[in-house]
Amino acid sequence: MDNLSMLTDLYEFSMANGYRQALENEEGVFDVFFRKVPDKGSFVICAGLQQVVQALQNFRFDQSDIDYLRSLKLFKENFLDYLSKFQFNCQVAAIPEGTPVFPREPLLTIRGPLLQTQLFETLVLNLLNHQSLIATKARRITYAAGNRPVMEFGARRAQGPSSATYGARAAVIGGCTSTSNVLAAKEFGIPSAGTMAHAWVEAFPDELTAFEKWAEVYPDNAALLVDTYDVLKSGVPNAIKVFKQLKASGHQPVGIRIDSGDITQLARGARQMLDDAGFSDVKITASNALDEHVVMSLLNEGAPLDNFGIGENLITSASSPVLSGVYKLAAVSDGQGNLIPKIKVSASREKLTLPGLKQVYRLYHKGTKKAFADVIALKDEKLSDPLDVVKANPLATKRDQLIRDFDAVALQEPVLDGKKLKADLPDVFTIQKHGKQMLSELPSATERLTNPDEFPVYVTHRLDQMQEKLLEKQGK
Amino acid sequence: MDNLSMLTDLYEFSMANGYRQALENEEGVFDVFFRKVPDKGSFVICAGLQQVVQALQNFRFDQSDIDYLRSLKLFKENFLDYLSKFQFNCQVAAIPEGTPVFPREPLLTIRGPLLQTQLFETLVLNLLNHQSLIATKARRITYAAGNRPVMEFGARRAQGPSSATYGARAAVIGGCTSTSNVLAAKEFGIPSAGTMAHAWVEAFPDELTAFEKWAEVYPDNAALLVDTYDVLKSGVPNAIKVFKQLKASGHQPVGIRIDSGDITQLARGARQMLDDAGFSDVKITASNALDEHVVMSLLNEGAPLDNFGIGENLITSASSPVLSGVYKLAAVSDGQGNLIPKIKVSASREKLTLPGLKQVYRLYHKGTKKAFADVIALKDEKLSDPLDVVKANPLATKRDQLIRDFDAVALQEPVLDGKKLKADLPDVFTIQKHGKQMLSELPSATERLTNPDEFPVYVTHRLDQMQEKLLEKQGK
Repeated sequence: MDNLSMLTDLYEFSMANGYRQALENEEGVFDVFFRKVPDKGSFVICAGLQQVVQALQNFRFDQSDIDYLRSLKLFKENFLDYLSKFQFNCQVAAIPEGTPVFPREPLLTIRGPLLQTQLFETLVLNLLNHQSLIATKARRITYAAGNRPVMEFGARRAQGPSSATYGARAAVIGGCTSTSNVLAAKEFGIPSAGTMAHAWVEAFPDELTAFEKWAEVYPDNAALLVDTYDVLKSGVPNAIKVFKQLKASGHQPVGIRIDSGDITQLARGARQMLDDAGFSDVKITASNALDEHVVMSLLNEGAPLDNFGIGENLITSASSPVLSGVYKLAAVSDGQGNLIPKIKVSASREKLTLPGLKQVYRLYHKGTKKAFADVIALKDEKLSDPLDVVKANPLATKRDQLIRDFDAVALQEPVLDGKKLKADLPDVFTIQKHGKQMLSELPSATERLTNPDEFPVYVTHRLDQMQEKLLEKQGK
Repeated sequence: MDNLSMLTDLYEFSMANGYRQALENEEGVFDVFFRKVPDKGSFVICAGLQQVVQALQNFRFDQSDIDYLRSLKLFKENFLDYLSKFQFNCQVAAIPEGTPVFPREPLLTIRGPLLQTQLFETLVLNLLNHQSLIATKARRITYAAGNRPVMEFGARRAQGPSSATYGARAAVIGGCTSTSNVLAAKEFGIPSAGTMAHAWVEAFPDELTAFEKWAEVYPDNAALLVDTYDVLKSGVPNAIKVFKQLKASGHQPVGIRIDSGDITQLARGARQMLDDAGFSDVKITASNALDEHVVMSLLNEGAPLDNFGIGENLITSASSPVLSGVYKLAAVSDGQGNLIPKIKVSASREKLTLPGLKQVYRLYHKGTKKAFADVIALKDEKLSDPLDVVKANPLATKRDQLIRDFDAVALQEPVLDGKKLKADLPDVFTIQKHGKQMLSELPSATERLTNPDEFPVYVTHRLDQMQEKLLEKQGK
């Protein structure tokens, strides 16, 4: 990974320079959270933490960066000097990648010199917003596909190189089984997938020759693209001819791919022809502008499909292409090491933030693995049973509730103490597995693609009281 | 720029390996074009060519790439050997960045060894699709803003690091004046922009102190964020106090920024208060989830705004986040160096491609700079006047038309001959200027954001006949 320290909004540098002059010794605590779930789902799948950790561990500025910043004539030399000797010196805690999380829960909390914590805002948000968005979309699509493998095929329509590569990583975290993107496959240990494009078929005098040449080169990986000319009149019959030759010479044909037209009707016709020819174990893959709704409707129509290849609608989360995660100040030290909790008030009550150093707990019915709510608490709080809570959504009617008979599991765990890694950073399939386990513990109605049940998220009475007091102080 | 040669779909490698075995000496010609314009606009602003050129000039594989590819057990050693000694050996022609282009026009054409040309598909599309998408969105937003500067503010919501950085470049090509992204500003010579975040205001005991401290550090760059608590009751009055102090000490206050609430009403109130206090030259900037439609409606309501900062809706082109550019085979050599034109036929006539080596011409009313149509012709054709053409859209009714009294300007120009650069790669503001000039030559109704007039795109009679003959051959 390149050094991304300059991928920062100018105002972060401006504020950091200001802190260097005006609040040199203060500590800050920032939380990353979001308020809205893409596609009106009920949860987001966390992703991107590994890249955040690497970016923070590598945070530094080279001479050309310092020279550039100096050329802006905005910053004092004492600040540029600080940057040129930058030593990452913060603590990071975060919810592990793959975990389904809910609005207003701090996914990541960073505590350290105010100057430093401010500088990471843009980069941390960029990485977490992007990968969490794509992991969340991949979860929707793989949910629609049931147990059929979903391949990530979007590199050509991704929003730049890292959108393709980190996007493929996130797609696997969200449930995909493979990617067409060879760079992502190599970097993150993902199986690479793909067959041929129409260009291969067109490069030969006719389709049959093109298929035969393919089978010669890939006798044990012969998956043929059958829609260059006409799926049922030419593509599938030619594929069957080649599959017969392969079988005769002791090879097992793999599959066909359909990339245009009425997929259900074409897949039915193709399945029939393949079965009649004795190729009932040859798989049919569909691609072509699919998303979770098209996948679900193809399967509802009974289309005999075995795999899906999903391109642009996954890699850009096209129907909902932004996760609006924010990075908000939760506390500032008073100069003597005491943290003073902070909130942001604005015209819209919805944007009210939660003060102080916090932890998120998932609550399970006692003695089970059935989760029924999350609670955001102050970090130094011990959860009592019964537990006095109020809804975390500041737009909800405020009413204290008592929760009883639960087991609580803390979701945030320490990740970095300075450059020292405090947590595992598992490989993508381990993350995927963790995510599936966490999903299986949620009520199944929260998983629905349309109108999912809301999973309750509370704050403790004590955290709520702290927020109320800060609001009062500001005359609200 | 990193080496992006592995950012390729697996099937490109599979096909290239197949070509190495079966069609080693063939040449291929591929065109990049798109069929649909994002946001139902009438044109796309080309962008990304500079990154394509750099990627192609740097195309190579290191030992770890070769080892990884070998581990897939798909490729022959003669192919891996070819890759390890890869020498870029193609010709590239392209329409210059910034140019408004229309559906079905080849933005970029690459000719060279079939094996090589196939390998570039994913990477070339990724770079051109992304930047052209964002440049096109930026054109829409800056069109809505009229002559008011538009700043690109989206890094934190971009789809990964390169979405932020190449996106900022594309935003300037499409008309933005600056970016908050310091890395993009440094890399591409773009002015960097931004003031402070809410965190600065919250880090101090009160808003007035926060503003005063800011003015101390940035006396000549004091742009203050006035919506942390209450814009009209606290933010603007505190800003005015600080502006008076600045003025008294000989400095010129810059502006205020409003990032939430009812922007029109708040901007009106703020403008009045600023004017009354003698600060009529202090600018008001609006940010907060703006796009071209919100900008237009704020200005229609008469909101007294001087600048716009646009975040997620620009950097992801949120309302239309995919440009579906494709990379299609137009010709293959017969092994004796003669190019055989090729088309792709599929179930949908809309996807029919144009065969052969081509050029795109913009047609102007003779002796003027008023463009009235584009024509796609075969490269070796000389345009006669009158010119016999048919509509390029394969869904249009086919009817020959005669076009008279025009000047024709070729849009594609040579860019690379092997690694040798044949064209200028100008800086982003030169590209922006070129684009504005080209836009000014189009009928103004094509620029409209909603229901724009379609700009006619034709193919020559000869190109049409070539396509027809190839269709007949395939029995269509």
